[in-house]
Amino acid sequence: MILTVTLNAALDITYSVPSLVPGTTHRVRKVSQRAGGKGINVARVLHQLGLPVLATGLAGGLAIDLPHSFAPLSASSRRTVTVVDGGGATLLNEPGPEVSSAEWLRFVDHFRILAREATVVVLSGSLPPGVPLDAYAALVSLVDCPTIVDASGSALSHALAARPDVVKPNADELLEVTGHRSPQAGAAALVRSGARAVVASLGPEGLVAVTESESWQLAPPAFLAGNPTGAGDACVAGIAAGLHSGASWPSLLREAVALSAAAVLHPVAGGFDPSAYEQLHATLPEARKAL
Amino acid sequence: MILTVTLNAALDITYSVPSLVPGTTHRVRKVSQRAGGKGINVARVLHQLGLPVLATGLAGGLAIDLPHSFAPLSASSRRTVTVVDGGGATLLNEPGPEVSSAEWLRFVDHFRILAREATVVVLSGSLPPGVPLDAYAALVSLVDCPTIVDASGSALSHALAARPDVVKPNADELLEVTGHRSPQAGAAALVRSGARAVVASLGPEGLVAVTESESWQLAPPAFLAGNPTGAGDACVAGIAAGLHSGASWPSLLREAVALSAAAVLHPVAGGFDPSAYEQLHATLPEARKAL
Repeated sequence: MILTVTLNAALDITYSVPSLVPGTTHRVRKVSQRAGGKGINVARVLHQLGLPVLATGLAGGLAIDLPHSFAPLSASSRRTVTVVDGGGATLLNEPGPEVSSAEWLRFVDHFRILAREATVVVLSGSLPPGVPLDAYAALVSLVDCPTIVDASGSALSHALAARPDVVKPNADELLEVTGHRSPQAGAAALVRSGARAVVASLGPEGLVAVTESESWQLAPPAFLAGNPTGAGDACVAGIAAGLHSGASWPSLLREAVALSAAAVLHPVAGGFDPSAYEQLHATLPEARKAL
Repeated sequence: MILTVTLNAALDITYSVPSLVPGTTHRVRKVSQRAGGKGINVARVLHQLGLPVLATGLAGGLAIDLPHSFAPLSASSRRTVTVVDGGGATLLNEPGPEVSSAEWLRFVDHFRILAREATVVVLSGSLPPGVPLDAYAALVSLVDCPTIVDASGSALSHALAARPDVVKPNADELLEVTGHRSPQAGAAALVRSGARAVVASLGPEGLVAVTESESWQLAPPAFLAGNPTGAGDACVAGIAAGLHSGASWPSLLREAVALSAAAVLHPVAGGFDPSAYEQLHATLPEARKAL
């Protein structure tokens, strides 16, 4: 099974209002909510693809609508509030709950057991307060199967020492961690720092995969109008699906680009449009070798 | 004891951000939350005054930090999200949970028993979906002690048939229900429709009390700079404290004006400044007879 790890799970609440006007009172017409956090979102895409998946991590008081085995927290998981109006989406993200060192160590033991059954392990998102900065390195070092890390800042840079199989930054995250504006140069720097491969997501320009010896590139067919929230998680799901089936780089990238694009075309963040996915998967060109 | 009724209790969440900018993502620095809803806020003021109080109503999944005996709901109580930034407060109010008729009838039975021990019953705030529009009339008719209704729109107009002892609209609520711009005329119209007395809250102009035979008026000493959220609930707490002790109209209004003003002077909504309250209570002039 594909094991996804979400250390800072969240209750994602979405409010619909006609117009968000600071300083005024709004009657919310529609409320929707569900468990979120990047690893849970990745698991949801994999589950929708019909692949065997288990979501794990640290959570307090969340109802998770997916196969899951989370370690409990005494504090409640954070909430994220998204206010959607005619002008777009406004996000309010709470900080995570304080995790005690006993809770972290209990999770590490729990993870070690779950990881034995995993074909791929996906580690996604921010670290809540109290979890050590090298948490991803610690977890990667416990795993025998391929690992993917989707993180930013110090959580990402500390992960590299454990040599994860794939890290998936976007262009901003690459710039922040490596100082390189060129994604190719930034990805190569992360490979030199320990990543076995880097898949950089570049929005409408698609994906660039860089390993020690080769580089591949694949872009979606044209500019896609839609909702880019969740495209990164769909991309990670595509990479995980590719590693799970032992795919080549070109077919892994095809899967990841088709899923990200189908997520952009889906009106609600966190899902993907299955028919757009089928069509893109069938019609995308072959990834081209860049090096 | 003073019994306060909150049929649409809420989890009040307050987020502090430097500046709320629609269409962007905000990292929330500070989160505070507690049970709210107008009747719970009234009970909190009475509790702070040291008076015997019990909060009741309908609630799902709320932790209430006051003496309380709520009837449970299968659905969760609504949330209100207040985003405070340099420019003021932005509110997002969820609709209430759907209440089944069995849940409503169970509450009525529960209320009937609690009301036997009450010296004053306070009925405050909106009705959640599923609760009959004449809910406040039904509850008032079960009570032998003085009753106060603080509601607006159809919840207020339906309450009048049961002849509550005091209703407490503000100027906007009076205008909406009676069509009168003059608070005196609006209050007199509510008395003709069944209220035994009306205490209208007029912001910086203070309070006007109107009964079938007399009218009284009392204003705070000067314009008060502060946070007016919660002043209405503090005013209702003052009226309840006055009825509880069998006070005359002048001393009831003194209590209510002193508490509202001390709530405006308190930086956090839902509390009052005790020393400002003591001083105002000692120095306010006598209410003057207006009719």
